[in-house]
Amino acid sequence: MSSNSQEGHTIRILVDGHGGDGAPGIVIDALVQAVNKPDSGLVFGIVGQPDLLLPLLRDAAVAEQVEIVEATDVIGMCEAPIVALRRKKNSSIHVGARAVRDGQWDAFVSAGNTGALMAISKLILKTIPGIDRPALASMVPAVGGGSTFFLDIGANVDCTSEHLLQFAVMGSCYMQAAEGVESPRIGLLNIGSEDIKGTDVVKVAATKLRESGLNFIGNVEGTDLFGDSVDMVVCDGFVGNVSLKTMEGVAKLILHQLKSELTSSIVAKTGAVLASGALHRVKDALHPSEHNGAPLLGLNGIVVKSHGSADSHAYLSAIDVAVREVRADLIDNIVKTMNGMAEA
Amino acid sequence: MSSNSQEGHTIRILVDGHGGDGAPGIVIDALVQAVNKPDSGLVFGIVGQPDLLLPLLRDAAVAEQVEIVEATDVIGMCEAPIVALRRKKNSSIHVGARAVRDGQWDAFVSAGNTGALMAISKLILKTIPGIDRPALASMVPAVGGGSTFFLDIGANVDCTSEHLLQFAVMGSCYMQAAEGVESPRIGLLNIGSEDIKGTDVVKVAATKLRESGLNFIGNVEGTDLFGDSVDMVVCDGFVGNVSLKTMEGVAKLILHQLKSELTSSIVAKTGAVLASGALHRVKDALHPSEHNGAPLLGLNGIVVKSHGSADSHAYLSAIDVAVREVRADLIDNIVKTMNGMAEA
Repeated sequence: MSSNSQEGHTIRILVDGHGGDGAPGIVIDALVQAVNKPDSGLVFGIVGQPDLLLPLLRDAAVAEQVEIVEATDVIGMCEAPIVALRRKKNSSIHVGARAVRDGQWDAFVSAGNTGALMAISKLILKTIPGIDRPALASMVPAVGGGSTFFLDIGANVDCTSEHLLQFAVMGSCYMQAAEGVESPRIGLLNIGSEDIKGTDVVKVAATKLRESGLNFIGNVEGTDLFGDSVDMVVCDGFVGNVSLKTMEGVAKLILHQLKSELTSSIVAKTGAVLASGALHRVKDALHPSEHNGAPLLGLNGIVVKSHGSADSHAYLSAIDVAVREVRADLIDNIVKTMNGMAEA
Repeated sequence: MSSNSQEGHTIRILVDGHGGDGAPGIVIDALVQAVNKPDSGLVFGIVGQPDLLLPLLRDAAVAEQVEIVEATDVIGMCEAPIVALRRKKNSSIHVGARAVRDGQWDAFVSAGNTGALMAISKLILKTIPGIDRPALASMVPAVGGGSTFFLDIGANVDCTSEHLLQFAVMGSCYMQAAEGVESPRIGLLNIGSEDIKGTDVVKVAATKLRESGLNFIGNVEGTDLFGDSVDMVVCDGFVGNVSLKTMEGVAKLILHQLKSELTSSIVAKTGAVLASGALHRVKDALHPSEHNGAPLLGLNGIVVKSHGSADSHAYLSAIDVAVREVRADLIDNIVKTMNGMAEA
């Protein structure tokens, strides 16, 4: 972490010029919006191939405000992370992670290959002392326009109870720092609320969470992710990934059926036209661009993943997540919480 | 299994007079529909408290066609399964499972406490030779009005690769027997399609499935549950339960948001009225009553779980599942498939 990260100082955010469905176009569109926001004290950079990026920055009239950091390699969205990690040492992700490690930039935002981003960031930045493994997190929509912070969603397929406890610490610090939730209510994903439910790992994790001093409310079920009883839910990355993909699948199925039913007759079509605003809002609420920006938590440096299909508005949200993490000194907070628990 | 189970013989179905939100009313309504169907060769019984059930059967004019089997105890929906199993040995579930074990009835259908139904059925009926653990399965809706058979959805929180293989065998036999799918396409739930993905248990299970002779199509993700690339998906009961509850949660969230958005303005309301038929069909497609009836697979006797909130039409579907399992000699088929694999 750079010492620039405290409130009041300049915050330097580096974004990945490559990776994601719309790069570099939407990344630059997001930067245009970012540099024109009245948020003083922010400096932006873009990492990637200068020949490609410079003309685009000039066209967008932000070449003066956005610094280019050179990276010669580009990692494909479907490349095997381990191969990308080893063979493309001058990729935009490698260069971005090194720039954060060396304190030249305060945070790195990328819409690139998730596995490669995690593997390379972990190799270069290492984890925060006391944290064994970084986790990938996401915000999922909940009733009444709310949301639930959900981790791990795929970085760690096998977890011990200690890992689950660490995820809870990191998530709780994140919710305080980035979302302003004072004492986040933490749920442990299980197959029932009773203590006797679940695997041995989950049962031991519940005991550790109860003794942690965190605001642990107990076991929760898959349905509770979308309710208003918890602010965040922790689980291992296998379960989290299946749950997240299940969400995506169900949402897609329902929207598909809605579309097909609402075009099935003239009366239904007319109704759909009249209700189109409402129907679009339902669709938007499932993929809120305000929720874009998944922190890679536990790294000793701030890295935020934007969804690969994010538009510029959503990409801007991912940049905002990075800014809030830096401003709130997230990493210092995680270190302090871990130290406090070790002493208790 | 009773020798009555072959095609052409009388099939005897015993239903649970207690358990579920609408018992015994909706159970008896379902029986009225069942006895009036032109399906010859079916005999029905209801197990529970005769004082309660007999007047209702009389009122419904089916007292002659439905045999009452006496059970004095009733297990509550929220009772701890292990307590119910030990203390209520004359519960409708105990009596029902014993009646199937002893060959007096060919199958038992219950909307009661799932955990108690599984625990008691397992204790009394035991598992099929070669099957270590019974699994709970469910049909989930898929695109184009299709469906995917999904197991285990909560009976076994810790599974070995061998258990996952057994679930695939049981599920495959079920799909052939009860759904008429000749060579069911089996997916293994994972966090990516590549071989390197997932836990060690899942990786070994993939190898065993590839060598099994079953129609294994490989790893699938949570989104694939709702697509048309697989007929059935296997996973451990922890992951399956979380996925199923995630489905329920997302569906509820979307329908809630739809309702709230569609009543937000007069124009949207008018549209919703015109599109109400279409909207109801979407809602129904998420909880198709035709999909009610979750088999407890792997038991040495046929037991089918109806959803606790099933209406009489849905309950009838659960009865139909039991009839199809008996008619197709499901248990014999599982035994034969297991034996074939052991010899191969």
